[in-house]
Amino acid sequence: MGKKYVYLFSEGDASMRELLGGKGANLAEMTALGMPVPQGFTITTEACTQYYEDGERISEEVREQVLAFVTKLEEITGKKFGDPKNPLLVSVRSGARASMPGMMDTILNLGLNETVVESFAEKTGNPRFAYDSYRRFIQMYSDVVMEVGKSYFEKLIDEMKAARGVSLDTELTADDLKELAAQFKEEYRQKTKKDFPTDPVEQLFGAIEAVFRSWNNERAIYYRLMNDIPSSWGTAVNVQSMVFGNMGDTSGTGVAFSRNPSTGEKGLFGEYLMNAQGEDVVAGVRTPQPIADLREQNPAVYEEFAGIVDVLEKHYRDMQDMEFTIEDGKLYMLQTRNGKRTAAAAVKIACDLVDEGMIDKKAAVSMIDPKSLDALLHPQFDPAALAGATPIGRGLPASPGAATGQVVFSAEEATNQTKKLGRHVILVRLETSPEDIEGMHYAQGILTARGGMTSHAAVVARGMGTCCVSGLGDISFSEDETSFTLGGKVYKEGDFISLDGSTGNVYGEEIRTVPASIGGDFERLMAWADEFRVLRVRANADTPTDARQARKFGAEGIGLCRTEHMFFEPDRISAIREMIVSDTPGQRWEALSKILPMQRGDFENLFEAMEGRPVTIRLLDPPLHEFLPSTKEEIEALAESMGIPAEQLRAKIDSLHEFNPMMGHRGARLDVTYPEIGEMQTRAIIEAAIAVQKAHPEWQVVPEIMVPLIGSYHELVFVKDIIDRTAGALIKDSGVALDYKVGTMIEIPRAALRADMIAEDADFFSFGTNDLTQMVFGFSRDDAGSFLPAYYKNSIYENDPFQKLDRRGVGKLIKQAIESARETKPDIKLGVCGEHGGDPVSIQFFYEIGIEYVSCSPYRVPIARLAAAQASLA
Amino acid sequence: MGKKYVYLFSEGDASMRELLGGKGANLAEMTALGMPVPQGFTITTEACTQYYEDGERISEEVREQVLAFVTKLEEITGKKFGDPKNPLLVSVRSGARASMPGMMDTILNLGLNETVVESFAEKTGNPRFAYDSYRRFIQMYSDVVMEVGKSYFEKLIDEMKAARGVSLDTELTADDLKELAAQFKEEYRQKTKKDFPTDPVEQLFGAIEAVFRSWNNERAIYYRLMNDIPSSWGTAVNVQSMVFGNMGDTSGTGVAFSRNPSTGEKGLFGEYLMNAQGEDVVAGVRTPQPIADLREQNPAVYEEFAGIVDVLEKHYRDMQDMEFTIEDGKLYMLQTRNGKRTAAAAVKIACDLVDEGMIDKKAAVSMIDPKSLDALLHPQFDPAALAGATPIGRGLPASPGAATGQVVFSAEEATNQTKKLGRHVILVRLETSPEDIEGMHYAQGILTARGGMTSHAAVVARGMGTCCVSGLGDISFSEDETSFTLGGKVYKEGDFISLDGSTGNVYGEEIRTVPASIGGDFERLMAWADEFRVLRVRANADTPTDARQARKFGAEGIGLCRTEHMFFEPDRISAIREMIVSDTPGQRWEALSKILPMQRGDFENLFEAMEGRPVTIRLLDPPLHEFLPSTKEEIEALAESMGIPAEQLRAKIDSLHEFNPMMGHRGARLDVTYPEIGEMQTRAIIEAAIAVQKAHPEWQVVPEIMVPLIGSYHELVFVKDIIDRTAGALIKDSGVALDYKVGTMIEIPRAALRADMIAEDADFFSFGTNDLTQMVFGFSRDDAGSFLPAYYKNSIYENDPFQKLDRRGVGKLIKQAIESARETKPDIKLGVCGEHGGDPVSIQFFYEIGIEYVSCSPYRVPIARLAAAQASLA
Repeated sequence: MGKKYVYLFSEGDASMRELLGGKGANLAEMTALGMPVPQGFTITTEACTQYYEDGERISEEVREQVLAFVTKLEEITGKKFGDPKNPLLVSVRSGARASMPGMMDTILNLGLNETVVESFAEKTGNPRFAYDSYRRFIQMYSDVVMEVGKSYFEKLIDEMKAARGVSLDTELTADDLKELAAQFKEEYRQKTKKDFPTDPVEQLFGAIEAVFRSWNNERAIYYRLMNDIPSSWGTAVNVQSMVFGNMGDTSGTGVAFSRNPSTGEKGLFGEYLMNAQGEDVVAGVRTPQPIADLREQNPAVYEEFAGIVDVLEKHYRDMQDMEFTIEDGKLYMLQTRNGKRTAAAAVKIACDLVDEGMIDKKAAVSMIDPKSLDALLHPQFDPAALAGATPIGRGLPASPGAATGQVVFSAEEATNQTKKLGRHVILVRLETSPEDIEGMHYAQGILTARGGMTSHAAVVARGMGTCCVSGLGDISFSEDETSFTLGGKVYKEGDFISLDGSTGNVYGEEIRTVPASIGGDFERLMAWADEFRVLRVRANADTPTDARQARKFGAEGIGLCRTEHMFFEPDRISAIREMIVSDTPGQRWEALSKILPMQRGDFENLFEAMEGRPVTIRLLDPPLHEFLPSTKEEIEALAESMGIPAEQLRAKIDSLHEFNPMMGHRGARLDVTYPEIGEMQTRAIIEAAIAVQKAHPEWQVVPEIMVPLIGSYHELVFVKDIIDRTAGALIKDSGVALDYKVGTMIEIPRAALRADMIAEDADFFSFGTNDLTQMVFGFSRDDAGSFLPAYYKNSIYENDPFQKLDRRGVGKLIKQAIESARETKPDIKLGVCGEHGGDPVSIQFFYEIGIEYVSCSPYRVPIARLAAAQASLA
Repeated sequence: MGKKYVYLFSEGDASMRELLGGKGANLAEMTALGMPVPQGFTITTEACTQYYEDGERISEEVREQVLAFVTKLEEITGKKFGDPKNPLLVSVRSGARASMPGMMDTILNLGLNETVVESFAEKTGNPRFAYDSYRRFIQMYSDVVMEVGKSYFEKLIDEMKAARGVSLDTELTADDLKELAAQFKEEYRQKTKKDFPTDPVEQLFGAIEAVFRSWNNERAIYYRLMNDIPSSWGTAVNVQSMVFGNMGDTSGTGVAFSRNPSTGEKGLFGEYLMNAQGEDVVAGVRTPQPIADLREQNPAVYEEFAGIVDVLEKHYRDMQDMEFTIEDGKLYMLQTRNGKRTAAAAVKIACDLVDEGMIDKKAAVSMIDPKSLDALLHPQFDPAALAGATPIGRGLPASPGAATGQVVFSAEEATNQTKKLGRHVILVRLETSPEDIEGMHYAQGILTARGGMTSHAAVVARGMGTCCVSGLGDISFSEDETSFTLGGKVYKEGDFISLDGSTGNVYGEEIRTVPASIGGDFERLMAWADEFRVLRVRANADTPTDARQARKFGAEGIGLCRTEHMFFEPDRISAIREMIVSDTPGQRWEALSKILPMQRGDFENLFEAMEGRPVTIRLLDPPLHEFLPSTKEEIEALAESMGIPAEQLRAKIDSLHEFNPMMGHRGARLDVTYPEIGEMQTRAIIEAAIAVQKAHPEWQVVPEIMVPLIGSYHELVFVKDIIDRTAGALIKDSGVALDYKVGTMIEIPRAALRADMIAEDADFFSFGTNDLTQMVFGFSRDDAGSFLPAYYKNSIYENDPFQKLDRRGVGKLIKQAIESARETKPDIKLGVCGEHGGDPVSIQFFYEIGIEYVSCSPYRVPIARLAAAQASLA
């Protein structure tokens, strides 16, 4: 016998989620718990996978099994498909392992046709109900299976209501509905050039195939991409005998949660409609009643339902989201699942369940989606204010949170208008550059036309916790950049716009926001997480402000301080530029000696802020041309201020031009060509550490100096030698017993391949997974936007490798590097400081392969703490 | 007891080359053969390495051993260091494992001082000789140990000759020389602020240290880099008791080869000078006599020498280069080594030695440096014409051979002036682009101001076998680009210049060249090589012309045909551009269908040229923007010719801009985004193959379609599916049983890491070591020029990884990929098509790790064949 592709509800249970999908597994579980569930069967996710393997057709094997189970269902229900006397009617619903919007929803009343509906009307003595069910079926089938949109049918209903002079669907008579059903079938014929299928078996397979197809529609693919769901999972199909909420006033249908999904408040929460079916509750045609009304309307059913809810919540040990139908006074359960909830509700429910003794702390920590915490850490739109707003565009959700404010077009204006006018501003730019940092700090939100999730704007905004939408290509700026057009409307400086950095939506109006709120439950949960966590969490922080924010969120150290971000302040950039245009080491030293005291001051503040916790400082990383202007005007202005001919400056800038800056003269390569840069930075770090150590003997200040972009052992030896010579002399002179570490980023494939040798001279490795991902994939994150969408569409890649670490390529290389480094030096400290350090799925992997700490932007620290705890518990 | 750092000549032999250096090992060997060698000792290469490990000082241990061997040498010779009565005088020479120009040469007569010289004069009865030796010693010691240049001393000699009214050194009297010695010492004191050392032991250690130091002087480092010599080898030091060629008219010194090093002609070849020492023979002060004269001048010595030469050649089984001295009528051998020779001589000598029964064919194949064959395959300067010429600049030796001709500044002029005026032209450009191809074909040589060894100009020129010097930064063009300035002189169109593509030298004049000559000996040698060779050799060839050239040089197939090179012909580029600016697949198809017949024609010619041998064709690789113009004028002209607004074209070009084109939208990524490109190319390949197969049933045409830049299994599956569907349909329709293969380049680290999976769907892998090297090292070859020199200077890298494959990083990854690919598919075909495929050292590695074929530019094919044979024999 071959594979079993179909299961009765009575054959499964909740543990069979992978095979039966969430919905099917829970229907089986409720059946097993003896709850009133209309019976049916589930076609497995493997049948879906098989469907795609067979070139998008249902194989004979699957078809035969389905037909056999139709027969079984006929036996169970005592009804028969297409039997006018006692017809079996079913609903068909998709049900993947994880709930997925975008998938085909529901077809109800399948099995009806012209003959059946007539006798059905007769048998139930309720022709209105029968024809209402029939027209609903035609409508849903047309929409879902044949993609003939609902609107065509809504239009016919509206015309009928107008003709009859009524306003509610329920006011249409049985004859009206019968006529509508006929019109619907005609509409179907015109749109599809086919007759509406009358054979219930043909109807059934049409519906099953539509479910399978919907697994690969664009919305589903996008959703999977966003939520790390592999396309190989497939979806199951649930075929369930119908019960009818539209059988009259003693019938109805509803949805309910066992707790409030917005606030987490305990107690039944939901709504229902009498004499209604399926979507009516949420469709808004009629206004549903709150679930509490049912207690008065039908106390027995209410009590039965409340009892079931209680059993289900205790059984699943989580807040439940349920669908039910009352058929002629009898309650049926159609679905239960763990309810979706806001982050705030999730945290409260988890804590409450612990307090109620239903779950332990481990379960509480495990049940929260770490990514959802983002919403607690940033301002959000007031849901009431958002309700009426329509987006004018959608960019990339580059940094979460919501922001509203008045448009400015330059970083200077962002600063000015905030400081002088007290305005809340949104900075709108083609793209941002390091010189915009101050203005970015003042802006409530940042919107850019160019750049991806890891563009400058995105990275900096995430670090600051500022909302950012990037890469909104539809925006077009006026030539003088004093206005932009979006969604057909022109926006000028001072106009209000709002950004949702969690979705990428942009709104052309002011929308009230509510501030971030991390209350007591949040702190309780994080404390539990820390109990179970082994992986340490540090923050990427470039300034004392970042560092303090990171501490507030529980960072245990700084895993990456990008020193170049300190170079862009106006008083520093000029010294940096002086250094760059220097022709001799002497000139370079002169310029560097101006920077030295500033950097030393920065580092002192950083060490102070971290109070003796580890601080990893990376030596200068970007190519030098990033510090120089590119336009003619800027070059001339700079040349004048530097007192050199513009020609000379331009020549210097030209000589620094690179074809592929990502793979150019940067990182450790700067220290090899200009050892004085590394020497100055070491001096600043060590002098600052000595000063802070002297001032705070109670701390142990251990600076970790990190060399970026190392590709070979001898390269690290060369740079480490500069560091050791400089640091050694300073420490000796200071009389303070300062310890320091020298390590390297592993971000070049060769460094990973030579990890055994490089480990000889490194106290620690920090995997720079951003660059490593770029080099291993051979594409630059700045340029990949032009082709990656085609890769997702064709399922070549299922995830953005810059968001979620590629285990099989990049991860394999990292694992290999760890193993060979530990052979050389078993106690080498191993961390990660790329963007992946804040991604829960990647954190799980890092934990598995023996990484000791991750470092992420301050606002990701709580997420990383929770994810790290979950990794330990998994 | 510690390590033995010093060996007597009588303690060593020729096998101890690593420890004693070439010179030391051969002195020991000659000693063992009973030849008249002045005795001495060798300080080992390990002592040199130790010197650097000890921070550039000679350790006590080494010092003590040297002193002990001085004592032994005193015992052997019966002379004593510093003993006025019977002084030991020695020569000190460097001697590395491989002979290396740039190393310290020789100090003679060490041991002389004021006291010793006086009694030496007395003892020999030849005060002129004694003081001549003394002044020579001071001069050499000052130059070599203290860097007081020879010219200071030459000036004093000239003044003395003027004062004495004589013209030859030999005309100066003993008193004159004594006075000169005093002047020399005074000069030394003034320049060094120290007295000239009188203690022979101090003199000796000064000289030894100078040898050690010279191992790391700039010239030596550069030479090592060019010749793959690791800096860790170190040099040995030979201390040998003096014999004197300057003792009078019965004394003399000379150099000789056992065969003619230019032509390979058998017979003693060399010259000598009587009453002379050391450098005099080559210094040109006096004109030396041909070695044949010695037969008349001193038949006994001549016969003895000729006998020794015969023994040595038979003993070493190779042509010998020897130094000898005659002291008062007695012959002494000072050195022997395998003689350097021209490529032509090398080939002739190897064949002659086989014919003479001295070596077998294996030895003949093994004794030729594969790289040297280059000189046989390209025109060279006539040595006589070159003699007087001085370079006006030096760029990178981008493509070997010599060229002379009249300057042109554009590819069009190169074509025009060659075709219409019959001129020989040199194309001089800032850099070349694919549109220059035709003109590059017509030019005798190409000179560019920008770009490295792998720039467009360099790669294309090597492919064509045209001489090219690239990256000559000193060149400055006039604004209108009708002239350039170099070495202070202006060159206009029509002016003569000459290029040496093997050295990078540029000359501002016409220099006669001699054509390439590959004679019968060459063919014999290559045939022997093919007997022993296992690794197959294919060529990178983009056109039928390339393919025919490759066949002539013995290529066994085409390993890489870059289809994009076919796109740049004027009639094609416009269709390509039309395709690029297309907005819909339909428009794109229309443009592609214009290209299809042209590509089909190209491929037909290629298959014809290869007569059934394998032809690997790579699908389109470069980013599309490479096909579009960049300047305002060109864009406007193109827009007009395409009949679209310049605005629109500019917008398209802007949208194609990439930050890091190397890591952008290219290779297989083009086929994923625009599958119609892959489809058209497959169609062209398969249709061409079918046509040629039909026309030549006697051949078996098996096109190998190669997908570039693959990074994942699913990506290859996607592109392979396009290929298979297209090819399958065409083959079915044709009725011809055509076989074809689909493979991929492994040039992205991830592809290497996922080789096990990717092998599932690939018939072959071709390692693209150029890109792989870039990605593994994380630097772009176009940009690395700004920092790699500092890496060489600091011995971080010893080789250019783009020239010689990096075994420990890139090589490790390739090895790993091969192993995992073979696990999946044991019979997968494995090749290399990067530049390294033509590099002998890399070929050795490829052979070791199980690569089956390399592919290189046509002019490298003979080199690769020889290197592959040597790899098998090693």
